[in-house]
Amino acid sequence: MKEAVVIGLGLIGGSLALELKKRANYKIKGIDADPANVQKALELGIIDEETTYDGLQNAEVVIIAVPVNKIGEVALRVLDCVESETLVMDVGSVKGNICREVASHPLRSQFVAAHPMAGTEFSGPEAAIYDLFDGKVMVLCDVQQSDWRLLDRALSISKLLNMRVKMMPSEEHDRHIAYVSHLSHVISYVLGQTVLEKERDEAQIFDMASSGFASTVRLAKSTGTMWSPIFLENRDNVLQTLDEYMENLAKFRTLIAESDDAGLRKTISDINYIKKVLKG
Amino acid sequence: MKEAVVIGLGLIGGSLALELKKRANYKIKGIDADPANVQKALELGIIDEETTYDGLQNAEVVIIAVPVNKIGEVALRVLDCVESETLVMDVGSVKGNICREVASHPLRSQFVAAHPMAGTEFSGPEAAIYDLFDGKVMVLCDVQQSDWRLLDRALSISKLLNMRVKMMPSEEHDRHIAYVSHLSHVISYVLGQTVLEKERDEAQIFDMASSGFASTVRLAKSTGTMWSPIFLENRDNVLQTLDEYMENLAKFRTLIAESDDAGLRKTISDINYIKKVLKG
Repeated sequence: MKEAVVIGLGLIGGSLALELKKRANYKIKGIDADPANVQKALELGIIDEETTYDGLQNAEVVIIAVPVNKIGEVALRVLDCVESETLVMDVGSVKGNICREVASHPLRSQFVAAHPMAGTEFSGPEAAIYDLFDGKVMVLCDVQQSDWRLLDRALSISKLLNMRVKMMPSEEHDRHIAYVSHLSHVISYVLGQTVLEKERDEAQIFDMASSGFASTVRLAKSTGTMWSPIFLENRDNVLQTLDEYMENLAKFRTLIAESDDAGLRKTISDINYIKKVLKG
Repeated sequence: MKEAVVIGLGLIGGSLALELKKRANYKIKGIDADPANVQKALELGIIDEETTYDGLQNAEVVIIAVPVNKIGEVALRVLDCVESETLVMDVGSVKGNICREVASHPLRSQFVAAHPMAGTEFSGPEAAIYDLFDGKVMVLCDVQQSDWRLLDRALSISKLLNMRVKMMPSEEHDRHIAYVSHLSHVISYVLGQTVLEKERDEAQIFDMASSGFASTVRLAKSTGTMWSPIFLENRDNVLQTLDEYMENLAKFRTLIAESDDAGLRKTISDINYIKKVLKG
């Protein structure tokens, strides 16, 4: 029976474990720094058994799904332990630092840097769900550094998950992801913060919260354990993105302050183009 | 047969028309400044027939669902035309200006200022749907200015729609709604704008857009026809809210710029309290 080891049994690692078992009949072994997560993952049937770094020899694939600031360290340790046929994949949201960290490891070619563009605002083994990845994009970075047979295995896993694959340099990934994921999280967090601060003075403000507020603030439920490291690992790109955002926000504020109805309508009409690029 | 006249046959007006017909068997007459909207509303069965301001005499209720900057003018015109038993309700997202505009009309007591806290990012008669209001909040403002029998009718309609009613002064409504609705729209618009600007330089950025981005940018699909007037009618509250937001955003940026992991985790952990106040 093929073995997969998943390191980090949270939302993404747990959901991958569920799919590898269901769709490809892998035997799933798990590792997590928190024994409570291992226990829960066993209880929920996410993993078949616990293992350790000494138990990676028979793994066909090792998936690293720990917070992004820990991936480099874990990846180097895994590469020190695996056999020559094992695929090692990470699934972190920032790819440049990780690729740099493993660059000079003798088994670099067994590593594939991956980012499945899927998630929810929940965390931990209880958040693991089936069908999380269906129809979503799997970004694979710097694939020319990977052995073609192990890249092929990573592509097979992506197909198994019913994902569309995009390949790009890690630097390009990190620049783009700051716009389409990291920025959304920052502005959602700050929306939550601003409304919570107001709530202290004005009771029952949340009774008026509409579905519009709920959707915009949804990402503010995500944990700092996951997101502080993402912001910091991708710091320069996130700051660049934020600076552009803040500049646009100041301009939008000016349109309102000056009661510039025509300017607001023109700006919003241009922004409405987002309907065309974001289907559904 | 009881008659209801709906003025403004868009998302909210159209959806109310559908419910009044289905749940209380009202005959629905419609008015819209755009003949194409009337035509569509007739085709879609949202209204039974078109009418004019001269045809309000038999209406049990007149609902005003035009853009907020037009409500005052329309409300005054409607109050000039109706009989003494007719309830006139508006459903705008800003309430202070409207209440001030009708304050000295001799039939002020027939007016109930309402804000059903429901919507989608779509617009026009085609956007009208059933069950939009179920379980949502209906805010009624300055109700001491309304005749108790007509207020009772507005409450009955709210119950019919399966809504929970909250009553508050219009000034309080406008202050709160800036936080839980108008601010969400501004930051979502500017997110859409910032990413669209980037897309011009970097192709295919949207291929990487995740469900997180989609939910945060959803409101940016809303029209300027509806939202420019809302921002301007509630300008001072929106600006106040935006200033607090921008201050918090600058602080969050500093935490990232200074790689303050502990500060970020603490801030995010405090914000995660939003999970407790926003169920589901």
